[in-house]
Amino acid sequence: MKIIIVGASGTIGKHVASSLEKDHEIIRVGSKSGDIQTDITSPASIENLFKQAGAFDALVCTAGDAYFGPLKNMTDKEFRIGVESKLMGQINLVLIGQHHINPKGSFTLTAGVLTNDPVVSGANPSAVNGAVEAFARAAAIELENGVRINAVSPTVVEESPAYFPYFPGHIPVTMKQVVYGYLKSILGAGTGQVIKVI
Amino acid sequence: MKIIIVGASGTIGKHVASSLEKDHEIIRVGSKSGDIQTDITSPASIENLFKQAGAFDALVCTAGDAYFGPLKNMTDKEFRIGVESKLMGQINLVLIGQHHINPKGSFTLTAGVLTNDPVVSGANPSAVNGAVEAFARAAAIELENGVRINAVSPTVVEESPAYFPYFPGHIPVTMKQVVYGYLKSILGAGTGQVIKVI
Repeated sequence: MKIIIVGASGTIGKHVASSLEKDHEIIRVGSKSGDIQTDITSPASIENLFKQAGAFDALVCTAGDAYFGPLKNMTDKEFRIGVESKLMGQINLVLIGQHHINPKGSFTLTAGVLTNDPVVSGANPSAVNGAVEAFARAAAIELENGVRINAVSPTVVEESPAYFPYFPGHIPVTMKQVVYGYLKSILGAGTGQVIKVI
Repeated sequence: MKIIIVGASGTIGKHVASSLEKDHEIIRVGSKSGDIQTDITSPASIENLFKQAGAFDALVCTAGDAYFGPLKNMTDKEFRIGVESKLMGQINLVLIGQHHINPKGSFTLTAGVLTNDPVVSGANPSAVNGAVEAFARAAAIELENGVRINAVSPTVVEESPAYFPYFPGHIPVTMKQVVYGYLKSILGAGTGQVIKVI
């Protein structure tokens, strides 16, 4: 398969890429690195990504920022960080990518445990993850030609100890477990699923 | 209690208002009607709402647009309708309103059944509702002085037959059932709850 990985240089993305590169053609996409550079907050930049990449079989997005900070001081400005990047970035990858993906292709987005299990300072990623999960369920019933879509929803990962203080009591999962979540979506047959890695 | 109802002239809002007006002071807010006019897509307009209303005990939002239409033709532009209105509108009511609400006050937002049970053409409200529900869960653990927040998540309502063709197999609930969902949030003690009316 020809697989586009948006966020391929990130903590999760690089492991997803390396687990697939032996058997598949990987197109690595990053904001500043990779085979193609794309700003996912810009629909025009996403259009350009698909023009450069050509038709593909799977798109995985492990990219997308959200804002961590106290609700008390949060304003529209901070909340927009997640809305523009992890939310609209991923959704526009699908809205635009649906016109470039091969039949029976798949989209795999990234949500996270905060949808259902919030932590202090995490209201922005909670909302964004909730939107991405609901969007995956909804888009799955409309995508045509057998195209699938799922969202992988991991908790904090062993390889990212910087996040541990924000996730008290969340038992970190291994990167291998997280990668398996993505492989289930990309290589499996499910659609409209939220693949929880917790 | 002093209760602000944003969307008080809407299908649901007017019933919530009339069920509370005997025992409480109601401030009706609409985009073009009511005691105070507010454009919830504008943080400045929301700031102005709270300046006019003064301190309050409960805020209920039954307002907020989302886009119904085929995923196939959907672009960033259409998707933004729900993001700016039903999503950021409601979230900004809380982010700004938290600085004006009385101790032990409550916020009650509106989500909907499409979070978990999507219909064709409903990807935008699905995503928006998913975000609002996750935000309510997350904000609940950070709001101070005993302030609560919940989201009411109704399916299609008997009084809105225009929506029936979009919701095949969804058994309509009565307006009385929907109003009870809001009363549970406003008059009850729960927080971080998604109150499903299905």
